[in-house]
Amino acid sequence: MEVITSKSNALCVHLRKLASSRSYREETGEFLCDSPKLLREAVQWGAPIRAVLFTEGTELPQVPAACRLVRVTEGVMKSVSPMETPQGVVFSCAAPDYAPPERLEPDGLGRFRFLALDGVQDPGNVGTILRAADAFGARVILLPGCADLNNPKTLRAGMGVHFRTAVYRCTLAKLMALLREAGLPLYGAALRDDTADARVVDLRRCAMAVGSEGRGLSAAVLAACDKTIRIPMDPRCESLNAASAASVLLWEAARDDY
Amino acid sequence: MEVITSKSNALCVHLRKLASSRSYREETGEFLCDSPKLLREAVQWGAPIRAVLFTEGTELPQVPAACRLVRVTEGVMKSVSPMETPQGVVFSCAAPDYAPPERLEPDGLGRFRFLALDGVQDPGNVGTILRAADAFGARVILLPGCADLNNPKTLRAGMGVHFRTAVYRCTLAKLMALLREAGLPLYGAALRDDTADARVVDLRRCAMAVGSEGRGLSAAVLAACDKTIRIPMDPRCESLNAASAASVLLWEAARDDY
Repeated sequence: MEVITSKSNALCVHLRKLASSRSYREETGEFLCDSPKLLREAVQWGAPIRAVLFTEGTELPQVPAACRLVRVTEGVMKSVSPMETPQGVVFSCAAPDYAPPERLEPDGLGRFRFLALDGVQDPGNVGTILRAADAFGARVILLPGCADLNNPKTLRAGMGVHFRTAVYRCTLAKLMALLREAGLPLYGAALRDDTADARVVDLRRCAMAVGSEGRGLSAAVLAACDKTIRIPMDPRCESLNAASAASVLLWEAARDDY
Repeated sequence: MEVITSKSNALCVHLRKLASSRSYREETGEFLCDSPKLLREAVQWGAPIRAVLFTEGTELPQVPAACRLVRVTEGVMKSVSPMETPQGVVFSCAAPDYAPPERLEPDGLGRFRFLALDGVQDPGNVGTILRAADAFGARVILLPGCADLNNPKTLRAGMGVHFRTAVYRCTLAKLMALLREAGLPLYGAALRDDTADARVVDLRRCAMAVGSEGRGLSAAVLAACDKTIRIPMDPRCESLNAASAASVLLWEAARDDY
């Protein structure tokens, strides 16, 4: 069993950088997770785990033989884990390719639904939305300006969804080309004079776009939408949180599937 | 115009304590908000604002004459604001009474719907849920063990909902007595053998209970439920984030209102 007792060990330095730097994550193609729950999910879904650091007494699942398993002191764990109260384990994992496929196809259950996120900057919201999309059979496409998929907070809020579901990142131009070829309309969550009630629009086969917490959809995405849709609500409320709105729209699109 | 240049000024000390300490907030009956957006909402809804601290150049709404308006330096603002990047204003506000009324009554639109939160510990989730409940015409009751309503993060996620909607706090015993007297059933979001599909249960007149992110509803709340309900979803997903689940249930309950 490998043991590390020094905070300046190269692996610790590497993991700390994975936790804190988006550009380092992009460069190395790895990310860092910080809980036993995420480790169980990673193992369950066969994610390419690279290194696991744990403190004595932490219950670990059986990790693949190929991954580096290292026992560390509480002090080392505290120096590496991005959590204020470390959960006894952190691990690194290789990131998949987030490029969208050449053509969009229905999923294994014949569902043909996507959710595009436009400038959703809160990592907790992005993780929560990934989870809701997975629950309701939609695939998520991140447009530029969103929180990093592999920020430790996004991963934490995702609760393992990263390991079992495909997520794509691309530009608006690329998304529009893919949707056009697949014959899918783009519906934007917005409030305009001509905005349709989400209940009367057929959401079973489309891409929906949800914008940033503060400003909603960008002008470019709005201009690309075939239609804008809204969730009816009490008039004195301007809006929902982005993750609330996405959850309700995803549910509304899936409501007749179950 | 009052000006404060010292971080150790008594008002600064008071506001910092409001930001950081729940027990101090309870004791003083005040809370602290940290954005111009919240100040605009507080003014719009006539909230009892006590003191407003701002830095030069911040655009302020017309605040009531009774409230103390203080210009501070950037350094003082940074020492008081709980935000990493202060937004140019913080203010204190008197908290309303959170005791539930003697009897539960329908709201002004005849709706008779409540959402009970049981151990929802994330302040962002509590604020997001308050916003969704306000949007979909349900009143929120916090059972013990939830994040503080007046934590700056709850207030931020609430986006002003605190100033326009009634929220109650009480024990489970008190809640059950109120529901019994009003003839309202309690439906808990859970996964049991006998759990009903939320779409087939009449949610227009009821209280729904949503539990903590990690553990769901407590045994005591589960035992008090007339029925448990679930949102149908892909079987490999265990659950949604608490705010996602609450948003979907609130929408499902309100879906026929609009």
